Amino acid sequence: MSVIKNLQFKAEEFEYEVPFHITNSVATSSKVITVELLLDNGIVGLGQASRSFRVNGEVFEGLLKYRDEILDKINGLDVRNYRRVFDQIDKFSRTAPSLKAAVQFAVLDGLSQTINLPVYQLLGGRKDFIETDLTIGIDNLETTVIRAKEAFDKGFTTLKLKVGEDLNHDIDRVLAVAEATEGAGYIVDANLGYTAKEAIQFADQMYKNGVNIRIFEQPVDVYDFDGMRLVRNNCHYPVGADETCKTKYDALRLVREDCVDYINIKLMKSGISDALAIVEIAQTANKKLMIGCMGEGGIGMGQSVHFACGTGAFTYHDLDSCFLLKEPQKFRFKADGNKLYPTF
Amino acid sequence: MSVIKNLQFKAEEFEYEVPFHITNSVATSSKVITVELLLDNGIVGLGQASRSFRVNGEVFEGLLKYRDEILDKINGLDVRNYRRVFDQIDKFSRTAPSLKAAVQFAVLDGLSQTINLPVYQLLGGRKDFIETDLTIGIDNLETTVIRAKEAFDKGFTTLKLKVGEDLNHDIDRVLAVAEATEGAGYIVDANLGYTAKEAIQFADQMYKNGVNIRIFEQPVDVYDFDGMRLVRNNCHYPVGADETCKTKYDALRLVREDCVDYINIKLMKSGISDALAIVEIAQTANKKLMIGCMGEGGIGMGQSVHFACGTGAFTYHDLDSCFLLKEPQKFRFKADGNKLYPTF
Repeated sequence: MSVIKNLQFKAEEFEYEVPFHITNSVATSSKVITVELLLDNGIVGLGQASRSFRVNGEVFEGLLKYRDEILDKINGLDVRNYRRVFDQIDKFSRTAPSLKAAVQFAVLDGLSQTINLPVYQLLGGRKDFIETDLTIGIDNLETTVIRAKEAFDKGFTTLKLKVGEDLNHDIDRVLAVAEATEGAGYIVDANLGYTAKEAIQFADQMYKNGVNIRIFEQPVDVYDFDGMRLVRNNCHYPVGADETCKTKYDALRLVREDCVDYINIKLMKSGISDALAIVEIAQTANKKLMIGCMGEGGIGMGQSVHFACGTGAFTYHDLDSCFLLKEPQKFRFKADGNKLYPTF
Repeated sequence: MSVIKNLQFKAEEFEYEVPFHITNSVATSSKVITVELLLDNGIVGLGQASRSFRVNGEVFEGLLKYRDEILDKINGLDVRNYRRVFDQIDKFSRTAPSLKAAVQFAVLDGLSQTINLPVYQLLGGRKDFIETDLTIGIDNLETTVIRAKEAFDKGFTTLKLKVGEDLNHDIDRVLAVAEATEGAGYIVDANLGYTAKEAIQFADQMYKNGVNIRIFEQPVDVYDFDGMRLVRNNCHYPVGADETCKTKYDALRLVREDCVDYINIKLMKSGISDALAIVEIAQTANKKLMIGCMGEGGIGMGQSVHFACGTGAFTYHDLDSCFLLKEPQKFRFKADGNKLYPTF
């Protein structure tokens, strides 16, 4: 048997090496909830939630109080029937998506240990490893260039650059980075910061200067599906949705309205169940995928590495929080430069 | 290790108890290919293809010649990385979908035995059993009523009635069945046989007479998406696509063009990989699902029972070929009346 008997939450806080600055937000630390799912065979399934108020509206102290309600819904279920457990946890999609991700992963982790098959193989085992980018937050021009060059020199050939607070400054910064890191590719992420017209201007300037942008991520506001489509249809680079795509329903709408080239899946937005659905929807619609993260620690990072390798669905991987946080411990994965390997 | 070492095909033919008559087709027997996938740990994964020329364009003797090409693509792959194997087999989606289903299931069956977890739990374990309908082929009025009554008396509360060759005769037959089997529900399947206007007339007559039709399946031609939508929007009953939905791409188009209420998934049309995608797409779009079969024997029936219980995605199950064929052997499932249980 592999029946759920208990659920425990452990609150932790990790500091960023450098304050993490994106459009309208600066974070100095990341608070996470590590979830321990106890089975009657003695196995403990682990998962981790990195909550986001900005993206999910989640309040950390509030999430900590969800434990009883979640356990009540899944207590006594067998993780071998993991979809039954997922269905119960899906009831928290709206109010606690990061916890949904953590508990759903803990279910898979508990099953994985029970049957002695790593989670990434339970999910299909499509890849043995993935390569991650590294994110450079918003900063002044000089510091942005220094950080980008450091990352590129360390072997990160895709750099994720945060923009969206000041169009002209963004253009100057990205052009300076491109000059200093020749040969790199860039994921440029505006985190809702532009209007559609500003985004098109930005992309136009980049294209005229030959900047190798791999994805222009979330140029416009969360609910601006039309703006997203406008940017997408008027820009030479692939355009991706992040904040706009939280659930599988968002993904289907983006597909039906043909708004994007890319979808950025984050387990913290979608949990395992919606993330799996988004993979199938996007692949069927010939949309490409990237995977991102919030401020997960080692356990949370590991769950995304397993998901990414298992589904093998992602063209780009932005799984870098383990490099940005002062928390060296890695769990169920190892890093070799920019390569991340699932372990068991 | 659980590495693929060999693949064997075994041709078999099973006779129908009663010739199986649907629109423009009468079958007296069903030819199947049983697939044995040998792994280096000595385990043999089993699957079964029930080819269809009418639906898939497949020619039995031709399919038997696919063995070398399939083995060449998957030899040496580990079934633990089952999505890598699926991706290779997906290359046969167009020309040999029933073989695709059989080999993909054999991969899951081999993995399942390797890790000691039944396939239905590998797929999520959402249900412990399902209930199937029973299909009554096209016949004269008296025989149709006798067969329907027999099935209903045996406990089949959902009857699948074949129509589509003669509108007025169909109306008479179904009304007679409805009178003789009060309390039953019906899936009425025209197998492409009507025009949109005929289908709407048929549904209208049924509705006026209070017939409890649960799904009106494939009223119009395969490629008539617009006709399907017209029927769907002008009929009180849920309308479903069967022949029109073979691949995940068909499912997405049906969703984007909002043509149906139901999709009928058959592993023989879609294999495991597309069937999984169709489940996610349909559930996201709030379309309902039924699962059907071709002329599978015991092994093929078992694979659909595992798929249906694992995903738990289906409102109605039309997994009755084991009741229609003179081939009593059941494999990896057992039947109790109209209830089908996965076994290991």
